[in-house]
Amino acid sequence: MTSTLSGASLRSDGRRPDELRPVTITRRWLDAGEGNVLVEFGNTKVLCVASFTAGVPRWRKGSGEGWVTAEYAMLPRATSTRSDRESVKGRVGGRTHEISRLVGRSLRAVVDVKALGENTIVLDCDVLQADGGTRTAAITGAWVALADAIAWGQRQGAIKGSKPVLLDSVAAISVGIVDGVPMLDLPYVEDVRADTDMNVVVTGRGQFVEVQGTAEHAPFDRDELNTLLDLALGGTAELTRTQELALATDPVPRG
Amino acid sequence: MTSTLSGASLRSDGRRPDELRPVTITRRWLDAGEGNVLVEFGNTKVLCVASFTAGVPRWRKGSGEGWVTAEYAMLPRATSTRSDRESVKGRVGGRTHEISRLVGRSLRAVVDVKALGENTIVLDCDVLQADGGTRTAAITGAWVALADAIAWGQRQGAIKGSKPVLLDSVAAISVGIVDGVPMLDLPYVEDVRADTDMNVVVTGRGQFVEVQGTAEHAPFDRDELNTLLDLALGGTAELTRTQELALATDPVPRG
Amino acid sequence: MTSTLSGASLRSDGRRPDELRPVTITRRWLDAGEGNVLVEFGNTKVLCVASFTAGVPRWRKGSGEGWVTAEYAMLPRATSTRSDRESVKGRVGGRTHEISRLVGRSLRAVVDVKALGENTIVLDCDVLQADGGTRTAAITGAWVALADAIAWGQRQGAIKGSKPVLLDSVAAISVGIVDGVPMLDLPYVEDVRADTDMNVVVTGRGQFVEVQGTAEHAPFDRDELNTLLDLALGGTAELTRTQELALATDPVPRG
Amino acid sequence: MTSTLSGASLRSDGRRPDELRPVTITRRWLDAGEGNVLVEFGNTKVLCVASFTAGVPRWRKGSGEGWVTAEYAMLPRATSTRSDRESVKGRVGGRTHEISRLVGRSLRAVVDVKALGENTIVLDCDVLQADGGTRTAAITGAWVALADAIAWGQRQGAIKGSKPVLLDSVAAISVGIVDGVPMLDLPYVEDVRADTDMNVVVTGRGQFVEVQGTAEHAPFDRDELNTLLDLALGGTAELTRTQELALATDPVPRG
Amino acid sequence: MTSTLSGASLRSDGRRPDELRPVTITRRWLDAGEGNVLVEFGNTKVLCVASFTAGVPRWRKGSGEGWVTAEYAMLPRATSTRSDRESVKGRVGGRTHEISRLVGRSLRAVVDVKALGENTIVLDCDVLQADGGTRTAAITGAWVALADAIAWGQRQGAIKGSKPVLLDSVAAISVGIVDGVPMLDLPYVEDVRADTDMNVVVTGRGQFVEVQGTAEHAPFDRDELNTLLDLALGGTAELTRTQELALATDPVPRG
Amino acid sequence: MTSTLSGASLRSDGRRPDELRPVTITRRWLDAGEGNVLVEFGNTKVLCVASFTAGVPRWRKGSGEGWVTAEYAMLPRATSTRSDRESVKGRVGGRTHEISRLVGRSLRAVVDVKALGENTIVLDCDVLQADGGTRTAAITGAWVALADAIAWGQRQGAIKGSKPVLLDSVAAISVGIVDGVPMLDLPYVEDVRADTDMNVVVTGRGQFVEVQGTAEHAPFDRDELNTLLDLALGGTAELTRTQELALATDPVPRG
Repeated sequence: MTSTLSGASLRSDGRRPDELRPVTITRRWLDAGEGNVLVEFGNTKVLCVASFTAGVPRWRKGSGEGWVTAEYAMLPRATSTRSDRESVKGRVGGRTHEISRLVGRSLRAVVDVKALGENTIVLDCDVLQADGGTRTAAITGAWVALADAIAWGQRQGAIKGSKPVLLDSVAAISVGIVDGVPMLDLPYVEDVRADTDMNVVVTGRGQFVEVQGTAEHAPFDRDELNTLLDLALGGTAELTRTQELALATDPVPRG
Repeated sequence: MTSTLSGASLRSDGRRPDELRPVTITRRWLDAGEGNVLVEFGNTKVLCVASFTAGVPRWRKGSGEGWVTAEYAMLPRATSTRSDRESVKGRVGGRTHEISRLVGRSLRAVVDVKALGENTIVLDCDVLQADGGTRTAAITGAWVALADAIAWGQRQGAIKGSKPVLLDSVAAISVGIVDGVPMLDLPYVEDVRADTDMNVVVTGRGQFVEVQGTAEHAPFDRDELNTLLDLALGGTAELTRTQELALATDPVPRG
Repeated sequence: MTSTLSGASLRSDGRRPDELRPVTITRRWLDAGEGNVLVEFGNTKVLCVASFTAGVPRWRKGSGEGWVTAEYAMLPRATSTRSDRESVKGRVGGRTHEISRLVGRSLRAVVDVKALGENTIVLDCDVLQADGGTRTAAITGAWVALADAIAWGQRQGAIKGSKPVLLDSVAAISVGIVDGVPMLDLPYVEDVRADTDMNVVVTGRGQFVEVQGTAEHAPFDRDELNTLLDLALGGTAELTRTQELALATDPVPRG
Repeated sequence: MTSTLSGASLRSDGRRPDELRPVTITRRWLDAGEGNVLVEFGNTKVLCVASFTAGVPRWRKGSGEGWVTAEYAMLPRATSTRSDRESVKGRVGGRTHEISRLVGRSLRAVVDVKALGENTIVLDCDVLQADGGTRTAAITGAWVALADAIAWGQRQGAIKGSKPVLLDSVAAISVGIVDGVPMLDLPYVEDVRADTDMNVVVTGRGQFVEVQGTAEHAPFDRDELNTLLDLALGGTAELTRTQELALATDPVPRG
Repeated sequence: MTSTLSGASLRSDGRRPDELRPVTITRRWLDAGEGNVLVEFGNTKVLCVASFTAGVPRWRKGSGEGWVTAEYAMLPRATSTRSDRESVKGRVGGRTHEISRLVGRSLRAVVDVKALGENTIVLDCDVLQADGGTRTAAITGAWVALADAIAWGQRQGAIKGSKPVLLDSVAAISVGIVDGVPMLDLPYVEDVRADTDMNVVVTGRGQFVEVQGTAEHAPFDRDELNTLLDLALGGTAELTRTQELALATDPVPRG
Repeated sequence: MTSTLSGASLRSDGRRPDELRPVTITRRWLDAGEGNVLVEFGNTKVLCVASFTAGVPRWRKGSGEGWVTAEYAMLPRATSTRSDRESVKGRVGGRTHEISRLVGRSLRAVVDVKALGENTIVLDCDVLQADGGTRTAAITGAWVALADAIAWGQRQGAIKGSKPVLLDSVAAISVGIVDGVPMLDLPYVEDVRADTDMNVVVTGRGQFVEVQGTAEHAPFDRDELNTLLDLALGGTAELTRTQELALATDPVPRG
């Protein structure tokens, strides 16, 4: 493989290979939820709503620890052709299950469940429009909604004590090799052509939470893996700054 | 019952009993769909997306007639407390079924299925935030998305012939009797206190498509019914003008 | 529209437009249930069985209030062609859901849940044969079965106190406009041809509990609505007398 | 075991051990179906409706052979306490599955599927009231409904040729050992006390189609088995005569 | 019928009509479960695993009695063509339900639930390879796994008292009439050609627990029934000895 | 982190950190399937059965390309406590979905679907006993079963042409950091204590097909990731040799 990180515009939207799409994180886009965020990675739009409730699932009662979980779903026409609703089909699909679990694990990796106490926060990530990278946008946006919900719980006194609940921030980005070129933040048209597709979840301090690399078309070697990880770390560092900015400047939270 | 249509402000949001909440209809809020609309009745926000496909369900093949149907759903945290997802529960609830059927019937009442030809249009109405009147907002917004999808089908040549497909417009509003006072367009706080609750679906020419009056708390008499219908017709006339305005002034449709 | 309430026989079964089909209400048709009724509107036959149990659903515990609910279903060959069983399909259909909810709401509108105390009554309405008007027959018959179940609960001492549990009776009828003529109590052949179809639920005192008018084929105006409501009120008044007669003259209830 | 076939009345309803309950088979109890029967074994009432359709399931197409199948179900309050509907639970229970399969197999044992041709007959057996022996009543009644449906198919010309489709009749009865006494046709109160419970399906010529003996409480020996089979053959011979009588004397079939 | 129990080899695998296939019962084939057995009847292989848990289902609490139940299932490619998984189809099929219930009843027939105390034992019988007789192999193997689980419960002190929990052993075999010849222990190729097929469950003392005879192709008479029962009793007597041997000689149980 | 790849025995089973458990791959363990393998990684036992059928799913018809897919499942008592069956729960869980998809993708990465032609191979991976690493054992064993099924298809002439269908072999192993020490092939006791857990799927030539690293307890850095990948590549190289040996020496395949 000959990879090229610079050079003439290789991408349909004119981006450089190592460039993110325009990312926006809008806090309090709705009134609903103890935290809510509309996150956009280019044309991908995901609504992330955090629901805070006192108490934990039965299997966790009495542990003194809280629980953070997530559910991901797509609206039927988030994509270019309409899909049947999972509610109508009567079952949640494998992809939905897989991404819901990924989002939940990624958030839990930066939460001190002891400090959260016996409270539950559910993050609903509903994709309004999908153009690649929906799971990475969901993680990135959900973390901000989670931060707002935790702040709400602290202001309400539902979270006791002064120990920080969030150990770090977390953000995610996709990377892939398209026509031999490693690229950051793939939109749908690049995603379907990629030989290798990787989703990387990284903390604010730059440590890995999840590395999920997949080769449907062609296996990848150690060098390619390293190049992709470099690209990803660059992207998540930028997303971390966008998250910080959103938390610093957005409207006064509800409560 | 002593009903009072004027007088000092009776409503928590300062509206007169016969006054609609602020209504906005935003066309092309997304890129997805052959028509899409974000409709807002006060704090109620519903995303209505029209999907146009050539062909009809099996039971309609060869009839020369098209099909228009709708699916309504709520995001889990559209309401003040989170509800479990119907996909996770593995079944569509009775209320969801009932409203989906109502939206579909209301739209079909103004569609000439012969003129549509053997094409199908599905209207997905997903409630992003619920504050009463979600089904009436869904009908009102879905009709605009439907109009855009029909126009798209005509531009694409998928709909042949010059016969108009839409016979009229259709809009809907809720009315109810709260503390003895008939009121228009109930938000959630009024809806739960209403003795009688009615949803009225009306064409642009002012004829009824659906009249659904329900008395959970106290039966209602003929006079009350008439007062409520008067209120509703005033509200739907105003919604008809808002729909016309949206279609007249919004951005160029996709095509 | 030119409506004609009199004139030569317009209906296949020789009825006048404002005439009910023969209606019979047979109490104690079975041994099962704390109340049971076989109700017939012409060829439509519905078995309504009331099950009385002490206690209420969890969400109502400690309220001091009872609960009345209903489930409607059709046998697979109640209609002219066989339908698949909902149990075999693994899901309850939208129409079934909608009618079950309607029957339950209609009955609750005349029940004083405080006087019922923390008891639950479930009304199972199973259509043995369907020839139009199954939901209206179900409501009309279920109310009689409910009255018997309440009387049973009082004799057993499960319902304490002397406050009447039933505030009124409730009955229901369908009306519709067929070939421009408003008609009462539509059998299947008229129902499929009706431009407008309305189900009206009315108390013994003549007040409305539900008004559900639907125009799949042609919208209807205020005059048509009024004519239909007049017809319906005439029909439900007659059904009320049939209900009273059934309760007055039928065999001694079980106890 | 000391078994006693005669002697003082041992049974709560005054029957001798080898005596059937009153059995009635009412043909054309409904208008629905190409054959329908209300069968009563004492207080057990089962509605058996036959639906005849041209064509066979996909896996049988082109074989020249027909198909006969059955579905058994109970109304929720057929028993002394109400059961949840299987449609609401979203799944068919094991007992329902097992009995549906038994009824279907029993009927197919006397059908010449070649002579039936590529037609399908579905027998719906819905228990309106259950007092023991519902599966045996279902088989006995369903065979009569099946005979009517086959006659209908022959009159309509849907079944071609003059070969008889029915090779024999089939009837079924339960037997059991209660307090050491073998008994015929157990009602619910005897059924729950039986050590051994057997359902026997027998042709008109007296041959076995199914023998299903079950010992939940105490295993049984060869002598007991033989005594039970003797009892059962006496009962089914009598049921065969009742079936013949029903077919000989009932009202003219539809068609 | 002319039945021949001896004579030249009639069977594809060279067995005499009254001869079992090679039967092996391997205890502790796995580490999992409080008892586990791989049982083989010729090419039929069933894994039977017993799970012992303290406590009983809610409906049995406080009775002082235990509960024994079973679940039967087949791997998708246990048969010559692959079947869809029941988990993927979202429902358990009728045959699976029926056999699970049969296995559970057969085991309970020899268990003293009082002596078991409030403990539950679940027997999972998973067919790894199917060549006829899977349900009879399952019962025969499951009883051995059950015996091991009971012994485990006694060693652990979870089962109190010295009363024997197992009243007897239980084994099962299939018999059938193939081309007029009654045969023992049918493999798949014989099973599909059998006119009559019977599964017989017998205790160690030679009493019947279940007799399930079925005639899909041709009804059977009393003589045939008796011949089949003789064959079955010979087979189960031999299986009883194999069970005893397995319990006597196998490796030390876990505990 | 201070990682130590050598030193005194750190693991409960006495292995070195970079040592695999005993791995066995038994071909033709059953008669079923066009390929079948019992694969064991220590106490983890997975049955992998390949089903070859002519034809492809509808969405692939006419493409000239074949399809390879997989379904993973666990027997209810594969683990130390019994889990409810997914068939009984009526839905496939998220973990099952996720692993089924992973196995399918991993196998497809080394299949030339053009060379396979319009044939489908389904790999059923059923976990008989689980002690960590079930998904990696499933992939490693399934590839061998797949190779046998492809060879069967070629011998039968169902696969035409001489182009190799398999581009390479594929194997998988888990690695993790336990108490600060990177370790290969984690059994259950180590898996639950691991801070980081990674599953790595590698081709025979040593290229990556999947890298799935997860940090539930503590994020991991680049060095740790590299150490884990080194360990994994050592393990998969050894598994590749075991696969080759199994294919070279096992009994003659069926055909």
